[in-house]
This record gives sequence, C-alpha cells and structure tokens, in this order.
Amino acid sequence: MPNFTIGVDLGGTNLRIAAVEEQGNLLEKVSLGTRVSLGRDYVISEMCDAIRRLTSHYAHAGKLLGIGIGVPGIIDIQTGYLRESPNLPGWSDTPVRAEIELRLGAPVVLENDANAAALGEKWLGVGRHVQDLAIFTLGTGVGGGIVLGGKIWHGMTGMAGEFGHIAIEPEGVPCSCGSRGCLEQYASATAIVRMAREVIDSGIAPQLSKAASSDPDFSAKVVYNLAIQGDEDARKVFRRVGRSLGIAIADLVNVLNLPMYVVGGGVSSAWDAFAPTLFEELRRRSMIYAATAPATPVDPHGASALVGAAGPTKTIVTRALLGSDAGLFGAAMLPLLRS
Amino acid sequence: MPNFTIGVDLGGTNLRIAAVEEQGNLLEKVSLGTRVSLGRDYVISEMCDAIRRLTSHYAHAGKLLGIGIGVPGIIDIQTGYLRESPNLPGWSDTPVRAEIELRLGAPVVLENDANAAALGEKWLGVGRHVQDLAIFTLGTGVGGGIVLGGKIWHGMTGMAGEFGHIAIEPEGVPCSCGSRGCLEQYASATAIVRMAREVIDSGIAPQLSKAASSDPDFSAKVVYNLAIQGDEDARKVFRRVGRSLGIAIADLVNVLNLPMYVVGGGVSSAWDAFAPTLFEELRRRSMIYAATAPATPVDPHGASALVGAAGPTKTIVTRALLGSDAGLFGAAMLPLLRS
Repeated sequence: MPNFTIGVDLGGTNLRIAAVEEQGNLLEKVSLGTRVSLGRDYVISEMCDAIRRLTSHYAHAGKLLGIGIGVPGIIDIQTGYLRESPNLPGWSDTPVRAEIELRLGAPVVLENDANAAALGEKWLGVGRHVQDLAIFTLGTGVGGGIVLGGKIWHGMTGMAGEFGHIAIEPEGVPCSCGSRGCLEQYASATAIVRMAREVIDSGIAPQLSKAASSDPDFSAKVVYNLAIQGDEDARKVFRRVGRSLGIAIADLVNVLNLPMYVVGGGVSSAWDAFAPTLFEELRRRSMIYAATAPATPVDPHGASALVGAAGPTKTIVTRALLGSDAGLFGAAMLPLLRS
Repeated sequence: MPNFTIGVDLGGTNLRIAAVEEQGNLLEKVSLGTRVSLGRDYVISEMCDAIRRLTSHYAHAGKLLGIGIGVPGIIDIQTGYLRESPNLPGWSDTPVRAEIELRLGAPVVLENDANAAALGEKWLGVGRHVQDLAIFTLGTGVGGGIVLGGKIWHGMTGMAGEFGHIAIEPEGVPCSCGSRGCLEQYASATAIVRMAREVIDSGIAPQLSKAASSDPDFSAKVVYNLAIQGDEDARKVFRRVGRSLGIAIADLVNVLNLPMYVVGGGVSSAWDAFAPTLFEELRRRSMIYAATAPATPVDPHGASALVGAAGPTKTIVTRALLGSDAGLFGAAMLPLLRS
C-alpha cells in the first residue's frame, strides 16, 4: 500500500476527514458535524480522534505524509494562525496549526477552504490537465481560489482570490465588506433567497410567493426547483446569478487569461439554471473569451480532452468535478505540495 | 564598458530606441517619428538603421546582448508574429521578429508595449523592490501588464493584462470591444475628452465650453489644466477617472493581492486630479486594501522604502516612476529576462 495523507474540511456545519493515497485515490472518508457550540477545544479533540483512528487503520503498510486542513477564513500561512473565521466563532487569532501538530505529532498544513477546493480541482478534478485555473465557490457566501503553475497563488498577505468582492454593480446592493454591488450579493445562496424575496415583494410572483410563505426553509434550492419547473420569476433570479458570474469571469479572463475557470460550491448544482446567461455575458464582455471559446459547452468530464499535448489553447469555463469533495481532496493534497 | 542591450518602443506616433547597459543605465536614446504612412518596410528599415548606428557606437567595449521591442498590439510570443495592431495599420499577421533578426543578425524579443512598461517599472522604476506588480497604462486607450515573480504574466494566449476591459459600469458606455462600461471608457485620454463634452452638452460648464469651442486641439490636457485651475466641471471629469480606476484597482487587489499597482501612461500626469477619488473608492471597495494601506500616500520615489527586508506588507498604489520611458527601458530588459 502506498503512503497517504489526511485531508480535513473543517466547515462551520460539517467536519469531514479523509485518508487519501499519495496518487489521489480515496481510502476512507469520515463525516462528522462540527459542534461549534461546544467550543474550539472540543472540535479539535474530535477531529484529532478521527484522524488518529484513520491513521492507525491505514498505518500497517503506508506512511502518513502529513495532514492538510481547509478552513473557511483568513489564514496566516507563515504562522499557521487562523486569523478570522465568521463560521467558527471563538477561533479567531488562534494557533490552529501548532495546536493540532502538538496533539498529533505530525506536520499540518492549514489553508483557506476555497484555496483547498482550487487545489482539489486542479490535481484530482476538472483541472488535471492545466497548470493554471481559478475557482469560484458559491455557497452561503462567494469565495475563490487561484492556482498558478500548479500551486495556490496566495498573494502578498494570503488574501488573493476574494472573487466574492469583485464589483458587479458599483452602486448596487450594500455588501458586508463595506462596498456595494459585490459578486457575493448576486451569486451566493444567500443572494438567491434575497433576490427571490425582492421579486416576491414586487408583487408579481405567485409561485415564489407561495413557496416562501408555505416553506419555513425557503432556500436557494427551493428557488432552483421552481426554476427548473419553468417558473419565470424563479428563472429570472438565476439569470441574475448568471449575469453577475459572467461579468466577474469576463473580468478575470481579461486580467489573467487563464485556460480554466471552475464554478463550484453548493450553488453550482443550479448550473443549468444560470449557465446560459453566464456564457452570454462572458462572450459579450471578453474578446479574449470570444476568441478562445470552445465550439460547444464543456462538460466537466470532457474538459481534459480539450487540452492538447502542446498545452491549453481554449478558455474552459465549467462546473467543478469533485462537487463538495473538492475542498476535502484539496486539503489532502496540501502536505504533498507544501515545498 | 559593460555589455548592453537595445530597447525599442515602437508606437503609432513615436519610434524610440535606446542603448541600455546590462545594469540598467541609459547609454543613449534616439527619438524618431514612426512614419506609418510610408509602410512597414520603411519603418523597419529606419529602425534597423538606428539600431545599427547605436550598436556600432557602443560595440568597441561591450557586447550587444539582444534587442527588445515593445509594440502596441497582440503579439504571438512563441512565433514572434505581430497579430494585430490598431496603431500600426498594415502590420497585422506579420513575422516582425524574424524580419528584424534577419536584417540585424541579433536575437530579438517582441513584447506588447504595456507588458514592456510593466517590466521597465519592475526592474528600473517604482517596483525595484517587489517581485509582483500590475501596471495600468492610461493613454489613448487603457492597457495593462502584470509582473509575477519578476516576469511578465502572459496568460494562456499572451492576452493577460487587458485592464482596459474590466467592467466598471455593466450597462455603461459602449466599448469598441463589444461590451459596455469598460474601464477604457472612463480612464483613457479619449474618455476624458468624451466625458468633458458630455458635461458641456449638459449646458452648465462655461469654462469647459469655452475651451472646447476656442481650442482646435481640445484634449485631455486642456481639461486637466482647467481642473488644476479649480474649474469644478473639469474636476468632476477627473473624479470620474479616479472612481473608475479605484473600482478596477479594488477588483485587482481583491483578486490578486499584489504588493504594488502602478498607474502610468500619459494620463497619469493628471494624477493629482484623480488620485484622491481613486483612493477613496479603493479603500471602500477592498477590505484587503484597507487592511494593508500605507499610513500616508506613497510618492513613487519613496515606494521602495516601504518594502521591508522580509518583503512587502503594504499595498502600494502609486504613479509610474519612469513616465513615458517605462516601455523603452522595459523593452531593453527583455533580452535579459527571456530565459
């Protein structure tokens, strides 16, 4: 059996841990809830217990090469501190890496969760045949990650890839960041619910209205279900998602001219509802995209076929292949790529 | 005498050629007009004659290491073809590199002019102490260049750095690229004249009106002169320039988190008229900038003092140091950086 790594996807809701072979094959995956309310120490103990169980189970033949942890928040890559995490209250400014290394006696690499997802898609997902890509993670908020030359582009202070705060409507909806009209206000699950309620408030959306008043868990998924059933008001909401993503991706194509842009995160499962508008905007707003677009839309499973032996020549915009596992697999790659 | 290179800045109006020592010191600079109307062959002959004169003059001691040429247009870096150049009619799809190498018997590196300017500022200008920067070149249009790890980031097809087509107002002024509301429509010299005429057409701008009707060469410079004399209508035009640049730079900070963003090109001489609005927008639209902004505005001559021994920690946004020579010096750097 080959050597292996442990990847951890530590979210505000779910804590998932996987043992992954050096070559990228999954050995085993453990899913736990993140019991945030019981405190940081409790969560770290639970995580370390699960890592120990997995490690001892697979240690008979292969060697544990290291542990990679993806966390939603601002990481200080040098020191391994978690600086700030809205989803993990009580974890700010703590030496998460050192604490876990101390408990487990193994090297730990800490990374932002969107960056981990970018790595996962690059090494084991849709980006296996390119060296450079950008990923949009559309969830409660909008995150992002950039891989250049096969490695995460961190930027000066580790903050690169904040795609959620690309300006879409300069005087648009106020954003928690202090700006207005950020992508996050038009392409996150939160934004989908808000935009649906805006349509309802305009008083001309019977299906959406009914769903919002009868369903206590009125969510982006409910809006999506109405959209695929053909409800024009729900479809309008997703056209706005597509337009905003199209503007943001066009900006990135014009600035970076990468071979691949990946859309991941929970909202990406509504791809068919927003993708047509996305591509329409993208083609209109980027001459570079128009000149290098594939002849037909690219299925994530077929993306690698478009990359020739001499390297990529087409700009591929597609869904993530690993879905919600991108961050988990990417975290498992971290110990292998740290050098 | 040390070895030297030849840099060429081949514009639609001016043809400038410099011999530059390996260490970056200027030996001699020659300025010619680009006689575009006499055809490509004529211009190339004139350029090659000037290069030969310079080379023989300095060949007694040092060795010519190569020739770098910055051209406004789309370059195929692999083949050395100039694909397209709006400013050099009749030059499209021609093997410019091979033609000049054939005539001079020396290695030639061809590069987009904004990329050359980025290199010039990185190696000999305001960016000497950083490894990563982005430059905005504000002229007739708006160009851009990105340097990562000391080298130009070309992107997949050599088209990276098209900052002029970052979306500022998604349904704003139509752009020649087919999109709407691109930065180029708000921050180029052409845009300044258009925006001034828009203010005049609104019928409440006596000074601008007078200048536009009395001056046959009503230009961005004329608008700037009125702005620094305190004319509120002219100042309004430059506030719009600053706002648009602020939005675009905030996008780049949020996406790339680089240590330095440089504003160059002819319009950058109006820095004092648009910079206050630029910084106001930037601070509002990028939490990353707000968290890493220097305490006081950075003079280009003082920028390097902000970069500590451990590398940059502040986000520096400043004017180009080399002015209109950035592209010329950058072109001279090309033969030294080609590996």
